[in-house]
Amino acid sequence: MAMVCLSDFEAYAKKYLPKIAWDYFAAGADDCTTRDENILAYKRIRFRPRMLRDVSMMDIRTKILGSEISFPVGIAPTGFHQLAWPDGEKSTARAARAMNTCYIASTYSTCTLEEISAAAPGGLRWFQLYIHRNRAASQQLVQRAEALRFQGLVLTTDVPYTGKRRDDVRNGFRLPPHMKVKNLERAFEVCKVSPLDPSVTWNDIYWLRSLTRLPIIIKGILTREDAELAVRHGVQGIIVSNHGGRQLDEGPATIDALVEVVEAVRGRVEVYVDGGIRKGSDVLKALALGAKCVFIGRPALWGLAYKGEEGLQDVLRILQNEFRLSMALAG
Amino acid sequence: MAMVCLSDFEAYAKKYLPKIAWDYFAAGADDCTTRDENILAYKRIRFRPRMLRDVSMMDIRTKILGSEISFPVGIAPTGFHQLAWPDGEKSTARAARAMNTCYIASTYSTCTLEEISAAAPGGLRWFQLYIHRNRAASQQLVQRAEALRFQGLVLTTDVPYTGKRRDDVRNGFRLPPHMKVKNLERAFEVCKVSPLDPSVTWNDIYWLRSLTRLPIIIKGILTREDAELAVRHGVQGIIVSNHGGRQLDEGPATIDALVEVVEAVRGRVEVYVDGGIRKGSDVLKALALGAKCVFIGRPALWGLAYKGEEGLQDVLRILQNEFRLSMALAG
Amino acid sequence: MAMVCLSDFEAYAKKYLPKIAWDYFAAGADDCTTRDENILAYKRIRFRPRMLRDVSMMDIRTKILGSEISFPVGIAPTGFHQLAWPDGEKSTARAARAMNTCYIASTYSTCTLEEISAAAPGGLRWFQLYIHRNRAASQQLVQRAEALRFQGLVLTTDVPYTGKRRDDVRNGFRLPPHMKVKNLERAFEVCKVSPLDPSVTWNDIYWLRSLTRLPIIIKGILTREDAELAVRHGVQGIIVSNHGGRQLDEGPATIDALVEVVEAVRGRVEVYVDGGIRKGSDVLKALALGAKCVFIGRPALWGLAYKGEEGLQDVLRILQNEFRLSMALAG
Amino acid sequence: MAMVCLSDFEAYAKKYLPKIAWDYFAAGADDCTTRDENILAYKRIRFRPRMLRDVSMMDIRTKILGSEISFPVGIAPTGFHQLAWPDGEKSTARAARAMNTCYIASTYSTCTLEEISAAAPGGLRWFQLYIHRNRAASQQLVQRAEALRFQGLVLTTDVPYTGKRRDDVRNGFRLPPHMKVKNLERAFEVCKVSPLDPSVTWNDIYWLRSLTRLPIIIKGILTREDAELAVRHGVQGIIVSNHGGRQLDEGPATIDALVEVVEAVRGRVEVYVDGGIRKGSDVLKALALGAKCVFIGRPALWGLAYKGEEGLQDVLRILQNEFRLSMALAG
Repeated sequence: MAMVCLSDFEAYAKKYLPKIAWDYFAAGADDCTTRDENILAYKRIRFRPRMLRDVSMMDIRTKILGSEISFPVGIAPTGFHQLAWPDGEKSTARAARAMNTCYIASTYSTCTLEEISAAAPGGLRWFQLYIHRNRAASQQLVQRAEALRFQGLVLTTDVPYTGKRRDDVRNGFRLPPHMKVKNLERAFEVCKVSPLDPSVTWNDIYWLRSLTRLPIIIKGILTREDAELAVRHGVQGIIVSNHGGRQLDEGPATIDALVEVVEAVRGRVEVYVDGGIRKGSDVLKALALGAKCVFIGRPALWGLAYKGEEGLQDVLRILQNEFRLSMALAG
Repeated sequence: MAMVCLSDFEAYAKKYLPKIAWDYFAAGADDCTTRDENILAYKRIRFRPRMLRDVSMMDIRTKILGSEISFPVGIAPTGFHQLAWPDGEKSTARAARAMNTCYIASTYSTCTLEEISAAAPGGLRWFQLYIHRNRAASQQLVQRAEALRFQGLVLTTDVPYTGKRRDDVRNGFRLPPHMKVKNLERAFEVCKVSPLDPSVTWNDIYWLRSLTRLPIIIKGILTREDAELAVRHGVQGIIVSNHGGRQLDEGPATIDALVEVVEAVRGRVEVYVDGGIRKGSDVLKALALGAKCVFIGRPALWGLAYKGEEGLQDVLRILQNEFRLSMALAG
Repeated sequence: MAMVCLSDFEAYAKKYLPKIAWDYFAAGADDCTTRDENILAYKRIRFRPRMLRDVSMMDIRTKILGSEISFPVGIAPTGFHQLAWPDGEKSTARAARAMNTCYIASTYSTCTLEEISAAAPGGLRWFQLYIHRNRAASQQLVQRAEALRFQGLVLTTDVPYTGKRRDDVRNGFRLPPHMKVKNLERAFEVCKVSPLDPSVTWNDIYWLRSLTRLPIIIKGILTREDAELAVRHGVQGIIVSNHGGRQLDEGPATIDALVEVVEAVRGRVEVYVDGGIRKGSDVLKALALGAKCVFIGRPALWGLAYKGEEGLQDVLRILQNEFRLSMALAG
Repeated sequence: MAMVCLSDFEAYAKKYLPKIAWDYFAAGADDCTTRDENILAYKRIRFRPRMLRDVSMMDIRTKILGSEISFPVGIAPTGFHQLAWPDGEKSTARAARAMNTCYIASTYSTCTLEEISAAAPGGLRWFQLYIHRNRAASQQLVQRAEALRFQGLVLTTDVPYTGKRRDDVRNGFRLPPHMKVKNLERAFEVCKVSPLDPSVTWNDIYWLRSLTRLPIIIKGILTREDAELAVRHGVQGIIVSNHGGRQLDEGPATIDALVEVVEAVRGRVEVYVDGGIRKGSDVLKALALGAKCVFIGRPALWGLAYKGEEGLQDVLRILQNEFRLSMALAG
């Protein structure tokens, strides 16, 4: 079967992954309305294509927080990559470096930060962080990330509690015994009381700021009000995200929320978006609406499930080609 | 099968209830447009989720007409609970008390008010009333309810005649011989000429007022004009309701009507809503739009059909957890 | 099978009529968009139901051009009733008289005007007219109708040529040999060159006026501009109609066009509407939007197909009951 | 099977063409959203039909760039007609001449311009041109077309690169060995690096102008900005087109774009449209919105696939009859 577009990878992953893993990756909260809206909202946006522009040379590189990437698509933080491919996040890190783009490693990785770093030295990586009830655990993670030359800290804000993903509840989802959330081994066990602190507020940004010189990117912002607060609290970037529709159902699609966030931010910090990117033209739409770069979540996992590092590179390469073609055709 | 969300209870009830009972509970008037709109209208409403608020402590209790309930979801008046579970309304009363919420017992109960009272002494209950051609029958019901310490009178206004529910006509729906509308035994027989008085007007609120010191809650209001009239006629509460879409088809969804009713009432009386509540996030939307509390109809019957008192508690507990989670995730 | 609503008659007719006859009655032009829109447009209109009004006594009689009918639903002109029931238009006339409403007999009847008259003496009837290339034929029809005490002339304006109904073309539709367009016998043969005059203009209203003292009702108006012209040319009534979606596809639904026609007419003449009426609540909507009365086309044919005169009475009685119930429930 | 409307030809072609050929003709870019929107957008447009106008004589002829055609529907440029019928573009040319309309021959024809010319001497034809990296090849084509009395040059602007048509990629689409892009034989081979020049800009219009006295029609314009540029660069006509949805997906439907282009052009040049025409009423809508003439792409191919020259005439004749009927019925 030819892998022509990202849906082909999705179909492959659905067919070959164990049901419990597929369900976990695919899951959305409640009725999955927001998960699906993320995609549908892109389809509602129309281009106004312009003709007869010289599109023989196009530069699709960009910079995020000063680092150049080969095209404006990075890897969003998602958990448990070993569910998709035995080498897990190590493969992800290698694919991202090979494609010269940014990989945001999740706290819920099945490899340690050290393993990820060692797998692809020199790659551009950010580290995604939750703030734990046990602040020492968070602090230790931040310091490890900084020591390993991760170049940004992505603070996820939309998980005071885990969203209700019905299939996961039905499946009694948990990691298979041979996988672990290695970054947190002693401090954390999946499926017990959540270690995440639901009392976190904006003031904790200052605490985080005090721990590190890394730029802080805040993830999960969906409103102009919160965008303004983020800027005022001194973050360097904002990822407009609804956690792939896995947390609060029936909030806005991210591409719709992007518009008001970009407007509120008025260029003071960089704005990114994740959720619902399935084609190169989606990337172009997000950029046209003010995003500096987009991040892909599930499609990266489908790529891993297909052929590990190589499969993820295929996914990125398809997006890159589609993005370049869309730019040319839209003039 | 795991019971994860309210749809699971619906599927169970559809599978295990006798068709004639399922059809009766599920029935909507005419094309069932309004019945279905009640649900669809919730799906059209989007949250604007806010981040980084301390949601570690949340108080979801509320008060309705001065009585505290454990969370803002009560049991709407629906008829014939013995069709769903042998103990009928006695189970409903027990479940409501166990969950510390309000149960509105229907005139069309298959247990007497006395049986309901005795089944769960001390529970918070309101009594739902129609005004009969035979006013003495209505008066007697009001006085029995007051004597039994029901704490509110809910006057249903949208049944001058019964709506046309096609499946019930096809099925020739009537109660099985061993069930009775016990509250009205001698005064009433199902399926003969309706005992309900179609000539009732706003002036009858004064008559009702003269019979009792209980607060009067008016149910079935869908317009700002009627909301204003209700306030002027001295009611204590309004339930925005279209009778679950069982009366006039192609009127507004209740959550849409709620907005204009709340606006018209301007806080002078409490406003509640029923119809279409299927998830905790629906409760949150109703409250955000000005409802003090919501009431569930069919989901309560599905819970009864599943496991009687225990099943209804399951339904309420799921809603409670979902509501709490939605509040946390929406900030 | 219980006949509970008009769809039941439709299902019956579809099952028991010969395919060629069913297809002919069901046919819409081209993609049948307008035929279906006539129905969908009603579904988009919402009631604002009012409560606590005395609806114990409701008078649903009305007058059209001075003649009282038992409720505001008449029989629209449709052709070839013998395709539905052996007695054809004679049964239609009897049913309309029995229900005390108005029947608009079509030029394309399979009974003569004289037979129709004789079948139900004293019934309220209008005659539907096309203007023929052979004006003498039209004049003779008008004079026969007037002599037979038809009480109105309905001039159809939307058939300069017959619409393209694909199924009829595929079926090679024509009347079976034992049926005839009896009113026009010598002057007319189906399926040859059309006898209808495509050069008819507003001035021909004056010519028609000169032939008869009967009120002229113009049928097929869909715009405010034409409504104004109709009033200026002295007609007594307007039927907003798109010929059941059988002529020009992708024009407006009649209930939508009604609004602008009523607005343009400003009460100077009576306005009626046909197309898409399937429930009593549709009738109420049409009246609420300014129609004096509605006419049903296909549902009348389904009634005939079910049980002739008796079946059509069933259809009318169901509409009448649904209309009365809707009025009561809408307050 | 009776061929009653264009969908009948589509169904025939889908059934009888080799899958690879059907897929190639049917293909749209990416998700085929724009391809399908071209059709759906017509369905959203409603007529305001006027009555009682003399429609006995209707003249449906028109002139495009001074040449009379029998009705306002021409043949859009599409490639590889031999995939549909052995005689390929020769049949197309004969059918167009027989129906007295304009045929725009594609650069990607499987017959030479000379063969096309010889097949139907005297027919009205325009030649569709891409600008090649090898300008000499383009210049030679222009000069051959002019010498062969083609009467217009249609410059396609929306193919700096070929759109991503997934099915073609999956099928590994290429011409069968016995067919050739004959106009370009030595200069061009399908499926190697594209010979089309992506660096073309508006200035190349001047270069083209310098080569020929033929009128230049620019094809692929979708915005008012580009329409203005086209007029300023001295073209004689504009074809509003999105290449049948085969290039950039999720741009506007052509009938929607037509409105803004017509508005921008203000009559300074002729405006045509292609894409989504499936019924005579679509033609009428396009004309009502300001198009001078429409062009059909896929339907012409279906006609060829059905019966070559004769099948294409059938398609044109059906459109012609439907167009005339729509005009009459819309008044």
